[in-house]
Amino acid sequence: MKVEYLNPFILATKNVLATMAQTTVEPQKPHLKENKDTFGEVTGIIGMASETVEGSMVISFSESCILHIVAKMLMEPVKPTIDHDVIDAVGELTNIICGGAKATLAKMGLNFNLATPTMVHGKGAEVHYPHSAPIVVIPFKTASGDFVLEASLADRHRR
Amino acid sequence: MKVEYLNPFILATKNVLATMAQTTVEPQKPHLKENKDTFGEVTGIIGMASETVEGSMVISFSESCILHIVAKMLMEPVKPTIDHDVIDAVGELTNIICGGAKATLAKMGLNFNLATPTMVHGKGAEVHYPHSAPIVVIPFKTASGDFVLEASLADRHRR
Repeated sequence: MKVEYLNPFILATKNVLATMAQTTVEPQKPHLKENKDTFGEVTGIIGMASETVEGSMVISFSESCILHIVAKMLMEPVKPTIDHDVIDAVGELTNIICGGAKATLAKMGLNFNLATPTMVHGKGAEVHYPHSAPIVVIPFKTASGDFVLEASLADRHRR
Repeated sequence: MKVEYLNPFILATKNVLATMAQTTVEPQKPHLKENKDTFGEVTGIIGMASETVEGSMVISFSESCILHIVAKMLMEPVKPTIDHDVIDAVGELTNIICGGAKATLAKMGLNFNLATPTMVHGKGAEVHYPHSAPIVVIPFKTASGDFVLEASLADRHRR
């Protein structure tokens, strides 16, 4: 995954959380994923595909982090646990963040379509990738906890 | 999701498991997903996307089922637990089964590209979908345990 493909994901994450959830996020230094991580409590996964590129974007939240974000999105008190509204919100955030990155990447000449997102809920669920896919991990901090965005995006047949 | 889109997924699953893992599978009656299910121990997720359609395919295996399938794929004894080889094999099966369905669907005039698969490992991890996506569930039986394929595939903007 080229370094210049990273910034659109970081910018989209900052913008979407600022506008949809009045949440300031601090992106940390990106790094290549070297071995499996234990993920957050709830995770959104979305595929990116065209005839020339393929990839996937994963965004995984700690419980405290997503409960505070969703409270702001829905303008409701912070829920005690992750429920269907929270899981739906993760799907929406996944779609909109990846859609924002897609729009910027299209201006850079990289065109693809988004698949339907899926959401995974469960403590200790690990998300894995094919060996051939180099994954970039971007950790984010918020005042209410951390989340991580992982992206893999590459030309087909050039892995 | 149209009924005629189902058969290509069923056929690809049967063919891929027969040829790659000498495993006979018995598809059960498909049904619409009505509420969350607890999923298998290891799950492959892959996105499908073009300018006109979007979707995702999920295939989730019980531990016994996937350990026996992978033993036949690798021509090795049955492993005691799910390890990285097994998770990689789930990614490969996900890709090849969805690729087989894609080839048949293309002949029916439905064209899309595949995203990079991701694999989820963990007992009790639940996979959820956006509310707007109707999901078809196809249970499969094998001599060594069950697995389930779930697919959502629809024209964009016509959900």
